[in-house]
Amino acid sequence: MTVKTILVRKGNAVVTIDPTATVTAAAKLLGEHGIGAVVVTSADGHTIGIISERDIVKALAARGGAGLDAPVSEIMTRKVVTCTQQDTIGELMKQMTEGHFRHVPVIEQDRLVGIVSIGDVVKSRLEQMEQESDALRDYIRTA
Amino acid sequence: MTVKTILVRKGNAVVTIDPTATVTAAAKLLGEHGIGAVVVTSADGHTIGIISERDIVKALAARGGAGLDAPVSEIMTRKVVTCTQQDTIGELMKQMTEGHFRHVPVIEQDRLVGIVSIGDVVKSRLEQMEQESDALRDYIRTA
Repeated sequence: MTVKTILVRKGNAVVTIDPTATVTAAAKLLGEHGIGAVVVTSADGHTIGIISERDIVKALAARGGAGLDAPVSEIMTRKVVTCTQQDTIGELMKQMTEGHFRHVPVIEQDRLVGIVSIGDVVKSRLEQMEQESDALRDYIRTA
Repeated sequence: MTVKTILVRKGNAVVTIDPTATVTAAAKLLGEHGIGAVVVTSADGHTIGIISERDIVKALAARGGAGLDAPVSEIMTRKVVTCTQQDTIGELMKQMTEGHFRHVPVIEQDRLVGIVSIGDVVKSRLEQMEQESDALRDYIRTA
């Protein structure tokens, strides 16, 4: 099971924001879409960072109200771990658990083609394991 | 596998905050402990709410910088879904996925005895399913 399996179901839409937008704008965007992170893209469409609920809360803890007017580029996470559609869900889950991040942009030939959250990964992995267990139980019952 | 299995491993420590504390204090507490939510308790130790990264980001999107000085009681989630140590991990996971929340305080005889996150639940469930699959594979191999 690969990342592509998830994107086929959830689609290729990704909410993005400009690095010059304010932290307030990013907070509003998260709320409007009911999501936990948005990808920060440059004018030419390249992924240059990601800004999550955690990044925003951290910035406010450190800077107070001034953090709200800061540009997204100042508080975003710059080291973004990305994946491709061919990566397996098992690998991705391990990376997310070990690295403590919840969102991974999917990049294909330098282009952003989707985003996968820890929720998507967990859901797929559980479905897959349930299918495997069912298959094994069937095998035992009919053997 | 029950909630107790998780608490035996992670312990009974729960980070709590007073309802009169500011949103800024809550944001700092989350950062210091590297967690996503804190339980709001009254002076007599009762759980009266929970405040998460998402609650904070929402408040800031709605109120701007003024949100930072608001008391926790104004922006916390008041309808807290709790569980007991006897609840099964499978049930809890379903509740969290359907209700879109990531933290569940564990209450025993009106007392807060722990907190379980979606990460804890997922980790336990995956371990359990891997054990089941291994057991079934062993059964088939030796049958």
